Amino acid sequence: MSLLHPDRLFPADSTTREIARSLFETVENLGIVSPHGHTDPVWWGENPAFENPAALLVQPDHYVLRMLVSQGVSYAALGIGPGAESDPRNVWRTFASHYHLFRGTPSRLWFDHALSEVFGIEKRLSPETADESYDAIAAALATDAFRPRNLYDRFNIEVIATTDSALDDLSQHHKASESWSGRVVPTYRPDAVIDPEFEGFADNLDLLGEITGCDTGTWNGYLEAHRARRAYFIKMGATATDHGHPTARTADLTPSDASGLFDRVRRGTCRAEDAELFRAQMLTELARMSCEDGLVMQLHAGVHRNHNTAVFKTIGRDRGFDIPTQGSFVEELKPLLNAVGMDPRLRLILFTLDEDTYTRELAPLAGVWPCLRLGPPWWFHDSFEGMRRFRQMATETAGFANTVGFNDDTRALLSIPARHDVARRVDCAFLAELVTSHRLDEDEAFALAPQLASGLARAAYNL
Amino acid sequence: MSLLHPDRLFPADSTTREIARSLFETVENLGIVSPHGHTDPVWWGENPAFENPAALLVQPDHYVLRMLVSQGVSYAALGIGPGAESDPRNVWRTFASHYHLFRGTPSRLWFDHALSEVFGIEKRLSPETADESYDAIAAALATDAFRPRNLYDRFNIEVIATTDSALDDLSQHHKASESWSGRVVPTYRPDAVIDPEFEGFADNLDLLGEITGCDTGTWNGYLEAHRARRAYFIKMGATATDHGHPTARTADLTPSDASGLFDRVRRGTCRAEDAELFRAQMLTELARMSCEDGLVMQLHAGVHRNHNTAVFKTIGRDRGFDIPTQGSFVEELKPLLNAVGMDPRLRLILFTLDEDTYTRELAPLAGVWPCLRLGPPWWFHDSFEGMRRFRQMATETAGFANTVGFNDDTRALLSIPARHDVARRVDCAFLAELVTSHRLDEDEAFALAPQLASGLARAAYNL
Amino acid sequence: MSLLHPDRLFPADSTTREIARSLFETVENLGIVSPHGHTDPVWWGENPAFENPAALLVQPDHYVLRMLVSQGVSYAALGIGPGAESDPRNVWRTFASHYHLFRGTPSRLWFDHALSEVFGIEKRLSPETADESYDAIAAALATDAFRPRNLYDRFNIEVIATTDSALDDLSQHHKASESWSGRVVPTYRPDAVIDPEFEGFADNLDLLGEITGCDTGTWNGYLEAHRARRAYFIKMGATATDHGHPTARTADLTPSDASGLFDRVRRGTCRAEDAELFRAQMLTELARMSCEDGLVMQLHAGVHRNHNTAVFKTIGRDRGFDIPTQGSFVEELKPLLNAVGMDPRLRLILFTLDEDTYTRELAPLAGVWPCLRLGPPWWFHDSFEGMRRFRQMATETAGFANTVGFNDDTRALLSIPARHDVARRVDCAFLAELVTSHRLDEDEAFALAPQLASGLARAAYNL
Repeated sequence: MSLLHPDRLFPADSTTREIARSLFETVENLGIVSPHGHTDPVWWGENPAFENPAALLVQPDHYVLRMLVSQGVSYAALGIGPGAESDPRNVWRTFASHYHLFRGTPSRLWFDHALSEVFGIEKRLSPETADESYDAIAAALATDAFRPRNLYDRFNIEVIATTDSALDDLSQHHKASESWSGRVVPTYRPDAVIDPEFEGFADNLDLLGEITGCDTGTWNGYLEAHRARRAYFIKMGATATDHGHPTARTADLTPSDASGLFDRVRRGTCRAEDAELFRAQMLTELARMSCEDGLVMQLHAGVHRNHNTAVFKTIGRDRGFDIPTQGSFVEELKPLLNAVGMDPRLRLILFTLDEDTYTRELAPLAGVWPCLRLGPPWWFHDSFEGMRRFRQMATETAGFANTVGFNDDTRALLSIPARHDVARRVDCAFLAELVTSHRLDEDEAFALAPQLASGLARAAYNL
Repeated sequence: MSLLHPDRLFPADSTTREIARSLFETVENLGIVSPHGHTDPVWWGENPAFENPAALLVQPDHYVLRMLVSQGVSYAALGIGPGAESDPRNVWRTFASHYHLFRGTPSRLWFDHALSEVFGIEKRLSPETADESYDAIAAALATDAFRPRNLYDRFNIEVIATTDSALDDLSQHHKASESWSGRVVPTYRPDAVIDPEFEGFADNLDLLGEITGCDTGTWNGYLEAHRARRAYFIKMGATATDHGHPTARTADLTPSDASGLFDRVRRGTCRAEDAELFRAQMLTELARMSCEDGLVMQLHAGVHRNHNTAVFKTIGRDRGFDIPTQGSFVEELKPLLNAVGMDPRLRLILFTLDEDTYTRELAPLAGVWPCLRLGPPWWFHDSFEGMRRFRQMATETAGFANTVGFNDDTRALLSIPARHDVARRVDCAFLAELVTSHRLDEDEAFALAPQLASGLARAAYNL
Repeated sequence: MSLLHPDRLFPADSTTREIARSLFETVENLGIVSPHGHTDPVWWGENPAFENPAALLVQPDHYVLRMLVSQGVSYAALGIGPGAESDPRNVWRTFASHYHLFRGTPSRLWFDHALSEVFGIEKRLSPETADESYDAIAAALATDAFRPRNLYDRFNIEVIATTDSALDDLSQHHKASESWSGRVVPTYRPDAVIDPEFEGFADNLDLLGEITGCDTGTWNGYLEAHRARRAYFIKMGATATDHGHPTARTADLTPSDASGLFDRVRRGTCRAEDAELFRAQMLTELARMSCEDGLVMQLHAGVHRNHNTAVFKTIGRDRGFDIPTQGSFVEELKPLLNAVGMDPRLRLILFTLDEDTYTRELAPLAGVWPCLRLGPPWWFHDSFEGMRRFRQMATETAGFANTVGFNDDTRALLSIPARHDVARRVDCAFLAELVTSHRLDEDEAFALAPQLASGLARAAYNL
């Protein structure tokens, strides 16, 4: 018995399932286009072996950590933070003994997919099978076949984007391109030099000045430094920028007001409102730069980071305590959109964790402003039900062409094929339902399926 | 092959589909009751021929414009605004070459319905079929059979409401009733003389005074002018009023506070907060008038109009750049409801573009206040998925009887039969699902289907 | 013909329906665990006969009242308030003649279930059957078999919780435990002595002091009084507290700030903001007490009570005019969670009437904070569609283990079996859909079904 049923995620109705199956057959083996994600550039630059099953599959996965913590498992038992368990096999056993918690979650689908497809393990993880799967995975990881670049080939990845600090030298991307045929492109993520509330903001601006030779003590020098860095990222293959902001607020100040705001921010004397306004203004400035240099903008807004102060202090970021907040885009994006939103050179892809905004704001906005596109369901919504709701809620107003296909958005390399598999299945199921209810002709569904699988992503990100 | 499948929009499950089909057979041919819409009274008063396919089907349709603009088509290419393309055939070709953008949208369903049912065209619109369909439609429009009054008969319309400024003389309604047996009723829409932020508000009040002979320089004279105009609309067949407000806020000031507020508003010196309060107070005043004269109130709240300032300035209103905003009704409606909400003579129909309010606010409010009814899914939600969500979210708390059937709400005459067809199909599908899951007996579904198709609308609007 | 179809609420697809049926067979006859509800303790202490059909089934049911009032039936015609109809048979006839209003609502499902399963009546309620059913029910109520304790046995209730004021002496619970084997446990509901805006708050605190012998004139004495009352409730079987607050706001003030706030509140001089802050602070204080004494906390936030002022003044509370408000939990719960949220002794169960918060806030919060659990769909969402949406929206992020099974939350004794029946059917249907779409293996669905039916409730509430 396999962990993966060939008809998984397809509709129950037999006619509709048959159509979904036929559609999926046409996209199942298309190469993976991964325009937004968080794989470690070191993997591509140095192609190291992965350490052990726990370090690869449990400890870095915030979805897994949060579920285990929610049911009373300590970070220490997972080998993280003060008093950490040091034997990865014990961490794996703890994971295995709580594997039932993941029933009905996307983590379960992704993990079963990795077990079955990547490691050829067909027994469900449990306390009984923990050691057996640990040994099998550990043995596999010791072989060359399971090094990152070989997995890239095996996963049929066509291109993959990383997400990189504006201050990064991209040396690993350089190494990768020098020594390997895989296509790994960086993404310009300037939060550390745009958000006055980012740790070390002032130092970051100093460093930005050093790297670029621009005077980041002045507004114009600071903007010039961004342009210089963007040019470097573009040279290294980048086609996009990414912005993680607390809100989607944008602003369009006069140059002198913007310059004055920068001076306050630069001195480190600004209040929270100034910080928010500076982030807002910078989105519009960056949109202007995108018109010039062609980098596609991505905006990920609306997360309350590190909700648990103690965990943040003792263990750090990205441990599962990030929580979505209410989204709001209509007034927020208006300044940017009225400044550059009709410029055919701009493309701005929006992401949200607040599904209420799909029908109320995002689909109506993307369904008229030519620069806007809707990113796929993000993070907690990168799931069967989440993707279904997105298509059901966004399509009627925004159509398919104003969406950008799938992002796997992950640092979990082994889940990448699983995530694309889920997305392709859900999209084929949705198309099949449109056909069965005669909202779409069958030939149109077959035209759309490869677009949703990779075509829209390739086009939206200029890949 | 036909563009329209007889089972379109019905459930996939064969048992449920069979029930939906049987229900639909009983309502398919019922006359159309259209209690809220935006057809041009000139059509009914003067029965002109339509100009050409683009002017009829593309240029006035803001759903179509917004989708084309969102994908980079210019207004000019659509024959609108500065540098407009002057040949309607070229506009049509542009539309045809982008027709794939409408896959999965209600515009597609409506347009295919019009092609097939109104013009007998059974080929999907595409660059290849553009000229053929243009010629066929243009030829049809040149014949008497495609003049508005003949279409009224052919569409089996029983009664249709227009939406008319409080300052309108309703001369076209007069002409229509003098020379024709169709039933076209006006609706009293006083935004221009209620909203202090409306362009030309002061002049509008002057004109309102001239028309009515009331002194619109005083609060009491102003209210009297509304009563006079309402009486005229009622004489011309009106059974309802309609109010498009930025929010659902209401107020119940003392007469002297209201009078003082009016004085500030009348002088044109009021601030935004006074304008909002005046609109709020007027909703309560109008509700009191409705208790006296029996006009049914409709409140359409929560739209940010003209989000694109440049498009508004160069091309004008209703070009696709209206975006929904967050809805909120509980505190907002409380003053009005506590003033007159238990009066059995009042009926207030609520519309929203924020679906979150269906289960949280609107169904609970309409499920207890006797004056309240829920309007059908509005605008972006006048769609297969939108209607399904509405029934799934509103029915359990508000029941069917607190809803008012369907509104086509359109200026697109040719889409009227399509829109009612979609609504009837979705409602029959929903009823069939209740039957299959044994939440409703079959005889009850057959009793409800004609109510949802036209009975509730006729009753709610006193038509 | 029966009012109840054996396959009701199961999926239409035959394969899925078959799985749902098999799952349901394993839980259908499990004892009822009812950890949160509002049955009258007098029923359990004194086991009285119920008065008449209207007094039992119509007048106390706010779902029924609100729907009838929404369609113009007066409270008086229902035997409530000024000018009340005095003949319960006439009240019953009024109900029967409006029974069609309940089509598609949970009230209809619950009422049909009671008619059929409790009274053996298999004819749908209508004007024609009103007298017949009235007579049959009245005759049944006159027999011992229909007294509360016999119904408890017949309904296969294993344990039922009531909700009791902190000031209650629990004498009925005492009587019940002395003279009967049924398990009825109280729940500590201290709103009257925590909410400074509660009617008679100062007097309530005086009474709390008298009952406990603590000095409720001081902050420490006041806290001590809570501890004393909680200990008494625990002695009487309580395992949980319940808190009905306007918002989910919490606070974690310094002891001296908290004490100063209490002094202002105690003097009755506090403003609305102080009242809100006091409620917020008390949630954190009560969470600390829960860490000590083990009572499970429940928070029901976000209702605008008594929206209709006139009905509240003339007829009172709980007559149908309570309306949900916007929910918000992320910032609100942060102080409490950062104070005690990682304490393994704390369990806090959250309820909402704002479904938007399921995916945006509640599932992400409960999916990581170890103290948090999600209560089942509450009030207006205690329904087929409401439960489906909850599972579809919460499961992928929170899993099943962070939910707590079903609460019937009712004062309507006869609806208890119906409500659990609906919940079990919807959950089995959801599990069956997971199986059919291969998101869950069949053995796992069989393991989960009894957990959802009663196991999770028993565990979450320590019952």
